[in-house]
Amino acid sequence: MTSTNNQVSTKTTNSALELALHKVNSVDVPQGKTIALAYSGGLDSTLCVKLAETKYHATKLYAISADVGQGEDEIKMANDNAKKLGITPIVIDIKEEFTKNWLTKAIQANSDYNGYPVSTSMTRQLIAARVAQKALELGCDALMEGSSGKGNDQYRMHNAFSLVAPGISIFVPVRDFDLTRGEEQLLMEHFGMPIDELIAGGDDKTMWCRSIASGGIGLDTELPDSIWLWLTPPTKAPDKPTTVKITWENGLPIALDGQGMPLDKLIQTLNEIGGANGIGKIDIFEDGIMGLKSREIYEAPAATILLKVHRDLEQYTLTKEEIQLKRQLDAQWAKMVYHGEWFHPLKKAIDAFIASTQEAVNGEYVVSLYKGNIDIVSRSSNSGLFFPDVRSINSESFNQKECAPAAHLRGLPYELIARRNKLAGLSQEEV
Amino acid sequence: MTSTNNQVSTKTTNSALELALHKVNSVDVPQGKTIALAYSGGLDSTLCVKLAETKYHATKLYAISADVGQGEDEIKMANDNAKKLGITPIVIDIKEEFTKNWLTKAIQANSDYNGYPVSTSMTRQLIAARVAQKALELGCDALMEGSSGKGNDQYRMHNAFSLVAPGISIFVPVRDFDLTRGEEQLLMEHFGMPIDELIAGGDDKTMWCRSIASGGIGLDTELPDSIWLWLTPPTKAPDKPTTVKITWENGLPIALDGQGMPLDKLIQTLNEIGGANGIGKIDIFEDGIMGLKSREIYEAPAATILLKVHRDLEQYTLTKEEIQLKRQLDAQWAKMVYHGEWFHPLKKAIDAFIASTQEAVNGEYVVSLYKGNIDIVSRSSNSGLFFPDVRSINSESFNQKECAPAAHLRGLPYELIARRNKLAGLSQEEV
Amino acid sequence: MTSTNNQVSTKTTNSALELALHKVNSVDVPQGKTIALAYSGGLDSTLCVKLAETKYHATKLYAISADVGQGEDEIKMANDNAKKLGITPIVIDIKEEFTKNWLTKAIQANSDYNGYPVSTSMTRQLIAARVAQKALELGCDALMEGSSGKGNDQYRMHNAFSLVAPGISIFVPVRDFDLTRGEEQLLMEHFGMPIDELIAGGDDKTMWCRSIASGGIGLDTELPDSIWLWLTPPTKAPDKPTTVKITWENGLPIALDGQGMPLDKLIQTLNEIGGANGIGKIDIFEDGIMGLKSREIYEAPAATILLKVHRDLEQYTLTKEEIQLKRQLDAQWAKMVYHGEWFHPLKKAIDAFIASTQEAVNGEYVVSLYKGNIDIVSRSSNSGLFFPDVRSINSESFNQKECAPAAHLRGLPYELIARRNKLAGLSQEEV
Amino acid sequence: MTSTNNQVSTKTTNSALELALHKVNSVDVPQGKTIALAYSGGLDSTLCVKLAETKYHATKLYAISADVGQGEDEIKMANDNAKKLGITPIVIDIKEEFTKNWLTKAIQANSDYNGYPVSTSMTRQLIAARVAQKALELGCDALMEGSSGKGNDQYRMHNAFSLVAPGISIFVPVRDFDLTRGEEQLLMEHFGMPIDELIAGGDDKTMWCRSIASGGIGLDTELPDSIWLWLTPPTKAPDKPTTVKITWENGLPIALDGQGMPLDKLIQTLNEIGGANGIGKIDIFEDGIMGLKSREIYEAPAATILLKVHRDLEQYTLTKEEIQLKRQLDAQWAKMVYHGEWFHPLKKAIDAFIASTQEAVNGEYVVSLYKGNIDIVSRSSNSGLFFPDVRSINSESFNQKECAPAAHLRGLPYELIARRNKLAGLSQEEV
Repeated sequence: MTSTNNQVSTKTTNSALELALHKVNSVDVPQGKTIALAYSGGLDSTLCVKLAETKYHATKLYAISADVGQGEDEIKMANDNAKKLGITPIVIDIKEEFTKNWLTKAIQANSDYNGYPVSTSMTRQLIAARVAQKALELGCDALMEGSSGKGNDQYRMHNAFSLVAPGISIFVPVRDFDLTRGEEQLLMEHFGMPIDELIAGGDDKTMWCRSIASGGIGLDTELPDSIWLWLTPPTKAPDKPTTVKITWENGLPIALDGQGMPLDKLIQTLNEIGGANGIGKIDIFEDGIMGLKSREIYEAPAATILLKVHRDLEQYTLTKEEIQLKRQLDAQWAKMVYHGEWFHPLKKAIDAFIASTQEAVNGEYVVSLYKGNIDIVSRSSNSGLFFPDVRSINSESFNQKECAPAAHLRGLPYELIARRNKLAGLSQEEV
Repeated sequence: MTSTNNQVSTKTTNSALELALHKVNSVDVPQGKTIALAYSGGLDSTLCVKLAETKYHATKLYAISADVGQGEDEIKMANDNAKKLGITPIVIDIKEEFTKNWLTKAIQANSDYNGYPVSTSMTRQLIAARVAQKALELGCDALMEGSSGKGNDQYRMHNAFSLVAPGISIFVPVRDFDLTRGEEQLLMEHFGMPIDELIAGGDDKTMWCRSIASGGIGLDTELPDSIWLWLTPPTKAPDKPTTVKITWENGLPIALDGQGMPLDKLIQTLNEIGGANGIGKIDIFEDGIMGLKSREIYEAPAATILLKVHRDLEQYTLTKEEIQLKRQLDAQWAKMVYHGEWFHPLKKAIDAFIASTQEAVNGEYVVSLYKGNIDIVSRSSNSGLFFPDVRSINSESFNQKECAPAAHLRGLPYELIARRNKLAGLSQEEV
Repeated sequence: MTSTNNQVSTKTTNSALELALHKVNSVDVPQGKTIALAYSGGLDSTLCVKLAETKYHATKLYAISADVGQGEDEIKMANDNAKKLGITPIVIDIKEEFTKNWLTKAIQANSDYNGYPVSTSMTRQLIAARVAQKALELGCDALMEGSSGKGNDQYRMHNAFSLVAPGISIFVPVRDFDLTRGEEQLLMEHFGMPIDELIAGGDDKTMWCRSIASGGIGLDTELPDSIWLWLTPPTKAPDKPTTVKITWENGLPIALDGQGMPLDKLIQTLNEIGGANGIGKIDIFEDGIMGLKSREIYEAPAATILLKVHRDLEQYTLTKEEIQLKRQLDAQWAKMVYHGEWFHPLKKAIDAFIASTQEAVNGEYVVSLYKGNIDIVSRSSNSGLFFPDVRSINSESFNQKECAPAAHLRGLPYELIARRNKLAGLSQEEV
Repeated sequence: MTSTNNQVSTKTTNSALELALHKVNSVDVPQGKTIALAYSGGLDSTLCVKLAETKYHATKLYAISADVGQGEDEIKMANDNAKKLGITPIVIDIKEEFTKNWLTKAIQANSDYNGYPVSTSMTRQLIAARVAQKALELGCDALMEGSSGKGNDQYRMHNAFSLVAPGISIFVPVRDFDLTRGEEQLLMEHFGMPIDELIAGGDDKTMWCRSIASGGIGLDTELPDSIWLWLTPPTKAPDKPTTVKITWENGLPIALDGQGMPLDKLIQTLNEIGGANGIGKIDIFEDGIMGLKSREIYEAPAATILLKVHRDLEQYTLTKEEIQLKRQLDAQWAKMVYHGEWFHPLKKAIDAFIASTQEAVNGEYVVSLYKGNIDIVSRSSNSGLFFPDVRSINSESFNQKECAPAAHLRGLPYELIARRNKLAGLSQEEV
């Protein structure tokens, strides 16, 4: 295998396309590798297929397609485009792994990065790890994926690739040839296979959260109703509240309205019900991995409901001290997952901390959903730490008189500070 | 001055009252002190007046009444009851101090303890500090206040008393005689001055947040519409959104719809507008100072709006790193203030941290208020750190190619972990 | 059982003793309980035996003596005094539990509270939990222990009692009768059984650390050589270094100089070797549970060596990110254990975090001990993350050129801050 | 100005040199810039001068030399080499700024990153900021510095350059041509100006700390006595302790043995005294900016003494709560400074936090220095929070009886946990 500057044909009259082709042609890449490609069937990964053939001259290309529950539409698109490309993707089904090992941890960690419940952040790492494993099995000597160089996914995939298949070549052509999204489209047209995108800038969907337009929406842009998949805007949602009962065990939802169901079905059901009642719009500034801010729009009805209830249930069943430290570690968890550190030993240690707290997080909540509002209507738990009889002024739990010395001892340091300040001539704190 | 068990007259046929009187009579208290009382005119502090006279035989009693912006109704009640008690309270006006030095810090700190924007937590400490100062000026040798022994206020006031007037006697009769709220009422009837309470368990109002029923509401109790002062429940709020523009400088709101106004007026205005649109209901589990949980109901339309916008504006104008650490220190700030540590040197140091970050927190936000929803409609700032041109895939800010080595270097530790795990025979992290 | 003010005989001519007896006599205590006493045989717990008999009129008294490895001298003293008291203690051997479940966690947590490796803080809680369990088995309805009211142990024991035997009466007579140490001695003389203390203020020894004089040493007091048990002061220690090799597995020391040994023996051996070479003196300000500072003197040669090496080995084998967060959780661990929160669910969650990190903490260290200095002479590990070939300027691990874009991308936020500051007219940070 | 691949003459018979020249020649660089070079006179920056002339064909080169107190030897070397190079450096004296604005903050922050008191980490950023300012004044359009691509300094300098002179070209030739240290030496020989290095791998000295060999020392290498500048190894240090009294004000040392002196002189004096007594050797694993570990050797007698005493003095004069949070922010401070984030707004906010705590950090300490040991012999402070009379069992500060209810209330959560666990059938925590 030699590395040469292999030329992609440039017969064209279109100067923008010429520039795109020039970008591709002006970079030397290794030739003749056996490549495993993370294939989703969208613009980026179809272009990868074309470039693997025409630019990298891959000896063999395995397009590996992961089913993480993105839904039938996306999988159909992937298959249709594969047919056009003349390839047969290897499909790996990681839906169950994603739900059982990843979403469960996200719920228990109150997953929240800048208001985003981290979704694509997770799937990219899971896909990368599984694609890299498959690549090792298949004897590949290169990995390829479709990330651009302005976003976060390149780092997420790179880390998982590096851990699972250290030393193997990693090709990220959109980034490495510095292509814009428009240039990608021109190139696909040039390759005779134009790709339509419903939403400019792309879209990524999991059952947990849908990302819309990847930071491409301006600061004052009003969001048209048409961009929502699950969401009926609050102004158009029903005039009557809908009530749902959610049952929890070990920090996880296990039943809706008393009916047990697996987590994926439960989430999908809540996406429908919550979305119909105007719940799940997220419109935030997000601090990207490289420290660049973007405005991001997400849609996540089930996640919004489940995370609100889970937090309240923790407030009910965990000690004050657990809650205070867990909130910090929850934030660290979400930051790490967002930054592509799912497989980091530190993330694993935080998981152990979180898991240790969830045994007591059991209960039943009734929530009322109404035009964007989630109201907790009733709460019960057999492992709660709320004992109103102890707190009640009328209870025998403790004699109020005990609190006089408790207040005195608690206030003792203030007497000492006052004494110190007087002795040292220090300003009395703000008083 | 001697300490004897001074008997309050017990002629009564009511056995519950007899028990209450017995509780009072069975405790020895110091006699003949010059007492400064934190007087609000409610059940607790009117009882204090009566007990100061009949039980403590105060040589002199100064009832000190603080105006922190609780509103005319409460002040009228305090005056009316004072007339009945035959006392003339000394009124200290700390509205401006509360607004300028306390609420500003609360906003900049994104004040949030378990979902509660900490309000009474602040006023109790401010009042205690000012009452203690006044007591020193007046030559008092005792301080008195009306807290019960099951709640948090006793600790808040004790700390401020201890710092400002260390060594002075502190009388907290409701707690120290172990009285229930019912017993307090019986005693006031016995003293010929029955006190009506609108809401069982009491109510405490500042412009920032109104506390309702102090933890006395059961877990399944539905909240009747009548308990709200500002709030129109979402189901009854207008069918059209109301739009407001809020202008910010140094992390503080300074104008509504372009009209500059002082913070207190701005908050009062937002309480009206926000409440009318269904915003401001808070229904949470709260971890009290003694580690006991209670269900607490609050009403805080302005606080809810301002804190949501302030957080978003920080997300816009502060660096990623400032936000991440500030969120932790914000939580610590709220915890300290809730726990009665306003005057603690550590709280002062956190204030210095927060103040240092707020210079850049400037901007203009338009929010749409609709049936409990606060939607940010537009954002602008001349000190923002959102530069879409840099992030844009089409910008010249940096060449995407630069990210290949950046991803490689960022992923290097994963290659090392993989190498270590292989050498040491350690399980590869979860893959 | 009734609660009356039971009088202990007061025939004496000694006015200090009279005061002590008055203190005892003036407090009402419950009579006729079946009491389980945490018995160590020292001044406090022998007085407890006497008071259980003469003041509490215990129906039955079980003196429960715990062997946590305090050594033969202390156990002999306990037995001798038991004989004099005419009681037969129930001995529970918790040495192995202390070593296997507690000291292991302390080492892995780099146990350090204000410089103190927390020792008595642990044993008190372990003893209290086991005594309370025994009390339940024996059908007791009261627990008794010898803590004073100025120290920390009362809280440690109370928490463990409350968890294991909630609702049972807890008697802490030294504290509850407000006795001074001198008064305790007078009372024991009065009871015909004077108790000698080698070190004024008491002494508490475990194999992990010896506490000397419990905060009773003044700020300028020079420490006489005679107070040390293991330690030869550096000035008198040998003129030649002693070298020891320590082998580690899963964050725990398992062998000295290649010879495997159980943890207790390893610690005892290092106490000898380290102490002989001037290592292990600790002289600190300690922040007590009630927020009071004291000067504390400890002696802990083995702990000093093991904790220094364990920290270095973590620096060798854990990722940068693990170390940074673990240092924070280590501090939280030590704080909780010191404050009597060993059995708290949060402490358990932190243990889970820590345990998750220790799998890779393996290696072999040679340390040189010389007149108070611990020098690490060599380090090796098969699970280290130190790969000098990668870092070396001569290695092929990565091309230095890659760092130009990495530096550019890392520095990008600074360009944006500069741009923001210029636009907003903000002061350029300190430059 | 055009960017072409300008050829440095390659007439040589030495194949290693040929490779080095090839590396230089094979990279295109911009031509004809006006360059400001951070010049120290060592191997890296002398090579920069040569390359600025022969490779970059600088229109004008300003060599800017910063005096940060590295001492006369280093300044003489810089001048001698400048003469040989035929250049006249512009000297900027930032000694006072470094001492007054940087070292003061380091002391107050208990500056410690993995055991390293951060020294070069600071000077690199200060130098870069001042060089960039000078460059702007001089109308330069490029900055140049001598960092390699395997170390940390490139990032530190890049960040400061980016903030102060955003958009200006940054040349880092050693890194950008991927040169090894040996190749640098060959090139300088080739340029007719061989450079001797006393210590292989380089050395960087400030008054605060001296870095030795920049990570180039192997894991088992014994450190020869000859590498130390200030340090007499403990085994060779005097047999008698030396005693020093250090006076502190606002968290800073202001006098030695009662004699007031400026901070730089005080540090230099303590380097002499401490070093003579075997103090100041640092031998650690350090986690570099890129996550690579290296073994680092430092020499810092004064820093070791001052930081130990400052920590103890904080333990004496600050509240427990200040100390606990400050230890976390101190760690964050050191991490940020090490990582080149001195000018980051977050670092500035942490400075504000720290400054707010130091008003009370006053006192006088006597330390005894002996063969590597620093013993605190006496402590005094007029702003201390150590009040032994309050803690003493014999004091009137508070009645021990008060602690019974305090212990009960503190233990209440454990009773609730026990109740919850029983109700929910949860395992009782570890008991």
